[in-house]
Amino acid sequence: MRTELCDRFGIDVPIFAFTPSEHVAAAVSRAGGLGVLGAVRFNDPEELDKTLDWLDENTDGKPYGVDVVMPMKVPTEGTSVDLQAMIPPEHISFVDRTLQQLGVPPLPEGEGREGVLGWLHSVARSHVDIALNHRPVLIANALGSPPVDVIEKAHAKGVQVAALAGAAKHALSHVNNGVDIIVAQGYEAGGHTGEIASMVLTPEIVDAVGPDVPVLGAGGIGRGRQVAASLALGAQGVWTGSVWLTTKEYENLGSNPAMTDAFLRASSADTVRTRIYTGKPARLLKTKWTQAWESEDAPTPLPMPLQNLLVADAHNRMNAANNPDAISMPVGQIVGSMNEVRPVADVMADLINEYEETVKRLSSL
Amino acid sequence: MRTELCDRFGIDVPIFAFTPSEHVAAAVSRAGGLGVLGAVRFNDPEELDKTLDWLDENTDGKPYGVDVVMPMKVPTEGTSVDLQAMIPPEHISFVDRTLQQLGVPPLPEGEGREGVLGWLHSVARSHVDIALNHRPVLIANALGSPPVDVIEKAHAKGVQVAALAGAAKHALSHVNNGVDIIVAQGYEAGGHTGEIASMVLTPEIVDAVGPDVPVLGAGGIGRGRQVAASLALGAQGVWTGSVWLTTKEYENLGSNPAMTDAFLRASSADTVRTRIYTGKPARLLKTKWTQAWESEDAPTPLPMPLQNLLVADAHNRMNAANNPDAISMPVGQIVGSMNEVRPVADVMADLINEYEETVKRLSSL
Repeated sequence: MRTELCDRFGIDVPIFAFTPSEHVAAAVSRAGGLGVLGAVRFNDPEELDKTLDWLDENTDGKPYGVDVVMPMKVPTEGTSVDLQAMIPPEHISFVDRTLQQLGVPPLPEGEGREGVLGWLHSVARSHVDIALNHRPVLIANALGSPPVDVIEKAHAKGVQVAALAGAAKHALSHVNNGVDIIVAQGYEAGGHTGEIASMVLTPEIVDAVGPDVPVLGAGGIGRGRQVAASLALGAQGVWTGSVWLTTKEYENLGSNPAMTDAFLRASSADTVRTRIYTGKPARLLKTKWTQAWESEDAPTPLPMPLQNLLVADAHNRMNAANNPDAISMPVGQIVGSMNEVRPVADVMADLINEYEETVKRLSSL
Repeated sequence: MRTELCDRFGIDVPIFAFTPSEHVAAAVSRAGGLGVLGAVRFNDPEELDKTLDWLDENTDGKPYGVDVVMPMKVPTEGTSVDLQAMIPPEHISFVDRTLQQLGVPPLPEGEGREGVLGWLHSVARSHVDIALNHRPVLIANALGSPPVDVIEKAHAKGVQVAALAGAAKHALSHVNNGVDIIVAQGYEAGGHTGEIASMVLTPEIVDAVGPDVPVLGAGGIGRGRQVAASLALGAQGVWTGSVWLTTKEYENLGSNPAMTDAFLRASSADTVRTRIYTGKPARLLKTKWTQAWESEDAPTPLPMPLQNLLVADAHNRMNAANNPDAISMPVGQIVGSMNEVRPVADVMADLINEYEETVKRLSSL
């Protein structure tokens, strides 16, 4: 499955793997794909710097990418204290009440309670600056076009820029801003996502941006048949994410075993698209936490970045509590086929083998 | 793109076309696919009988199918008068108020006001009985398994039975009931649909029912790339519907020009999944009518079959009024690529050609 992207990035297969884990990213890159490290979890830019040092040393010289979360328009900014003051008390009491009902204990004394500052524009900018001091081949932005000066800075270093789009008009606008590669993020995808499913969205974006702009199909891709389907739809490669959450390498991130259990037992019907994670619609695993936000007395989620600040402490507490019924985690509908914990290299091999079988089957019809 | 279904049904390509128009169904069958006539619009069984006489004579001896709407469990039944009495007055006044706000005039004196009785179990049964006196090769049920005695009756006449499924567990239950073919109805599809997108749903159902039960991919299919994607996902054929609503042959149904205009101008974002059409979630074109049902003062839609009786007169009035902003019509997300009125044969030729180009492209990667 070599496409033009393989030459562009020096990779064997156009399988792009978004992951918050440097261990997964490195393993994907070593297996011939492009591991893309999610930077949003790094509140401390120095920690990202060290992690990218580690990636530089553990990818056998293979390329990798970095993913940031940066709205094009600079949102309300300030210190986390200023933003906290904008959160209505009824939202805070709903979160407290819900955690109590779900039996989520407080964090042990002394454990950090900070939200994920990567959602803040200034922090995301620092992520880009640090990344560009390493050797990524791609900066991807999980929220559409990054600001034009960020794109120019990346280009000046010879780094390509990818942006997510859930509609053809957004993809066109990204291209006009200088974005090199569009990730067509279908409805079925985990995390921020629109309402148009991959089957319709991918060819629409491919046709809109024309043959000179490569499109990565995203959403619902965890098997080789889905890679083949996405390439059939006109994508030059695939953007995967959820499928790496149940790999052996992901466990190195210190994720709790309850979360892995929750993924393994979930069916494709066990996700929900909701604004409760960041303020923008994102697909999460359906749990008692997401259900609580659907109850009659639940408040309307706050806009980005306030919603994430509101729930950040709750996320930390749920993650520490190790209860598969009360977690908050983005994942796509592909979770239904994530049924065992496997090494990244095995998942990659299966993606490639099933892709090849599929194309052979189609050719023989 | 010959699959086992081509031999099973004596068709050239495994493209199944659901349509309320006998003219579209005949043209698809003549072009080598399988036209499947939707029977739900026939309140008078004799009219269906005559229409199937017409199909028998206008398909050049090629096979065709018939689609009915028949819940497995017999719902509340009775005359339309009994059912009308179960509709709350606030629902009726909301519909009246909304039609007034949208400027929809009453029907001219003497025009029929009956709801679509095909949603009633007894009427759907009469559709099956009449169909089996003709030469369909397939009875499809738009609501899952038909009752087991209906399946047996079809089998006794050598007619295969297909059923829609939006989840793997439903598909398995259909197969246990004796259903021969599963239509994997993805989130992006028009009409009744679940929440799992085709990219995930199709392979899940294919794996669940095993290699002996053919699966048709449905939802988001209007181009050859999408046919190839669906077959890549493991489907043995595709089930299409929306794409035939903007064909020349469909206009013979007497559909109003405003509806065609509304389809032609709609983007893939202009649909909504809602219970307002039948009481069960179905994807419709987004119009001022669907928006009115999302307003704060809108009542909760009634269960099937009451909701369709509630809105049947409104549908008749909107259809007669010829205003593209106030119509009520099921359509899938593929509506975004339905941008001109074309003959069925041209659409079929494009589906096949683009499919072949796509497989060639994949084979060359």
